[in-house]
Amino acid sequence: MSLPRIAVDAMGGDEGVRVMVEGAALARRRHDKFQFLLVGDETRIKAALEDHPNMRGASEILHCDDVVGGDELPSRALRRAKTTSMGLAVNAVKEGRAGAAVSAGNTGALMAMSKLALRTMPGIDRPALAALLPTLEEHDVIMLDLGANTDADARNLVQFAVMGAAYSRIVNGFEKPRVRLLNIGTEEIKGTESLRDAAAQLQAATGLAMQFDGFVESDKINRGEVDVVVTDGFSGNIALKAIEGAARFVTDLLRTAFTSSLRSKIGFLVSRPATELLKHHLDPNNHNGAVFLGLNGVVVKSHGSATAKGVANAVEVAARLLEDDITNRIADDLAALGKEDGNVPEDEAAE
Amino acid sequence: MSLPRIAVDAMGGDEGVRVMVEGAALARRRHDKFQFLLVGDETRIKAALEDHPNMRGASEILHCDDVVGGDELPSRALRRAKTTSMGLAVNAVKEGRAGAAVSAGNTGALMAMSKLALRTMPGIDRPALAALLPTLEEHDVIMLDLGANTDADARNLVQFAVMGAAYSRIVNGFEKPRVRLLNIGTEEIKGTESLRDAAAQLQAATGLAMQFDGFVESDKINRGEVDVVVTDGFSGNIALKAIEGAARFVTDLLRTAFTSSLRSKIGFLVSRPATELLKHHLDPNNHNGAVFLGLNGVVVKSHGSATAKGVANAVEVAARLLEDDITNRIADDLAALGKEDGNVPEDEAAE
Repeated sequence: MSLPRIAVDAMGGDEGVRVMVEGAALARRRHDKFQFLLVGDETRIKAALEDHPNMRGASEILHCDDVVGGDELPSRALRRAKTTSMGLAVNAVKEGRAGAAVSAGNTGALMAMSKLALRTMPGIDRPALAALLPTLEEHDVIMLDLGANTDADARNLVQFAVMGAAYSRIVNGFEKPRVRLLNIGTEEIKGTESLRDAAAQLQAATGLAMQFDGFVESDKINRGEVDVVVTDGFSGNIALKAIEGAARFVTDLLRTAFTSSLRSKIGFLVSRPATELLKHHLDPNNHNGAVFLGLNGVVVKSHGSATAKGVANAVEVAARLLEDDITNRIADDLAALGKEDGNVPEDEAAE
Repeated sequence: MSLPRIAVDAMGGDEGVRVMVEGAALARRRHDKFQFLLVGDETRIKAALEDHPNMRGASEILHCDDVVGGDELPSRALRRAKTTSMGLAVNAVKEGRAGAAVSAGNTGALMAMSKLALRTMPGIDRPALAALLPTLEEHDVIMLDLGANTDADARNLVQFAVMGAAYSRIVNGFEKPRVRLLNIGTEEIKGTESLRDAAAQLQAATGLAMQFDGFVESDKINRGEVDVVVTDGFSGNIALKAIEGAARFVTDLLRTAFTSSLRSKIGFLVSRPATELLKHHLDPNNHNGAVFLGLNGVVVKSHGSATAKGVANAVEVAARLLEDDITNRIADDLAALGKEDGNVPEDEAAE
């Protein structure tokens, strides 16, 4: 079976065309069946392609001049969905010219364009942004929503859990991913009404392709004891950025400490392999590729500052979701959830 | 002026009587005017006091048998406010037998008991839990609320900002602390209606003893560019624990890396002073003492796992808040806020 090709917004991100094209080429070196639709300035894309002969015959260029700004309001960007590289990449998925889109551009604009072009899939009220985070164990943990929606009611949270579990089965290969709701305590009485209702619904549903383990607090996200952390977009964004900030804070302190004396500088050189291991484990490029789940099509957001290796990871995530048909998997799980309850879960308004 | 004494719940926390008494004694070695009311099992307190001759003549014991459990529901603990060491320590503040209370016990129970006994101060609708976190700079950053309230409207957030700024002036000595609201972006359109309303109110008020700088994202909390981070209790608790968890995650990875080979073990030994510096900076005992702000009295929560050094820090925080009369300072600032606007800020219901 030939894999449908992947549309790459070649203009998005801090690093621009060269890194996006190099990332695609890197992914293709590992998977030679990958095909690309590269969207953006033709001259610059062609120039970048000259360094990557393995992309010959594997890529088509869709030219456009317009680019979405990094700080642009999503509502403004949306008006240029038909002229910008981001909009055209997403539209290629809608029109079947590509199976998935990858962009390193403005997250809010990408979400807005993807929602408008691809629409939310049947059975899902709102899409969610899901990302991979490192843990103490071999596998990553998936957290969603990370900011696609500011709030979420119980019904949204249950749907996020189903989507996150489907994503985990595909990228981590777990048959029954361990799913938990992010809360400020693990007791049943903690948190908002929406969280307690969502927990009750997930506890009651027995035929789900996941193991629901109740609540998790945000200090346990990276321990490797949970595979999918489900939350509303506000709390998820707060938790994600707090983790990123604290990791950077500790490594900054470490750098200061290591350069504070000659002795510690020598110690640093000696322990180089150890600190390189740490750096590798924490490098966001090794966990790159946040996914918009719940749309009629696959859209992957690459970090704005990702290197070619990071972009290649994002492309591979897109390809796996496409190959494993994430949209139909989520649809099947939703159907099972409906059947279990005897009806579709009711909408529980947030308190 | 003699400092009113401090009531210490000698039974709370994971480490029990010995550590609480040792912490009080340590604080008294640094400040010999400190006086204590030690609440708990008399026999065990007396035994612990034998190791600390400097506490002679500086401490009275208030005996009781009952202790609040670490996992006990606040509502259950509340019924035993008159018989437990925690309840009696808080009650001593209410009755004027002590100026402040320190406990390392169950946070929810301590909050509930403190609210019931001391009541919320005039002009404050809800108290908040505030803690100190390390930054890249010399001074700590204050974050509140950390879980006293699950949600907060604009009026609550404005009051938290005033209380946090007063706390920062006392512990960090800043005349105009830099205050920001925690949000998922720094643009004015980001976040909830409550956050945007609170920002507008704080921006409009000109006579406040703080510098209001708008929003901050959670990856910037520890950079040292903000002195007070204001948020609702749910997001604050998520952010605090995410930071704690991520810091532990990185140090755990570091430990694994440093023990992965003989070379890295040697490197670790050579760079010991550097990693000790890091450990010192991250040690929660050096930032111990979360405070319930907005009550008619000072109550400080010590970490459940704090060492004697940590308890001493919590005692010193209590003493400083008492000496600098935090309650009246907050009252003055609230009055200034009301005058600025020409009226008391209106209640803006959360969206």
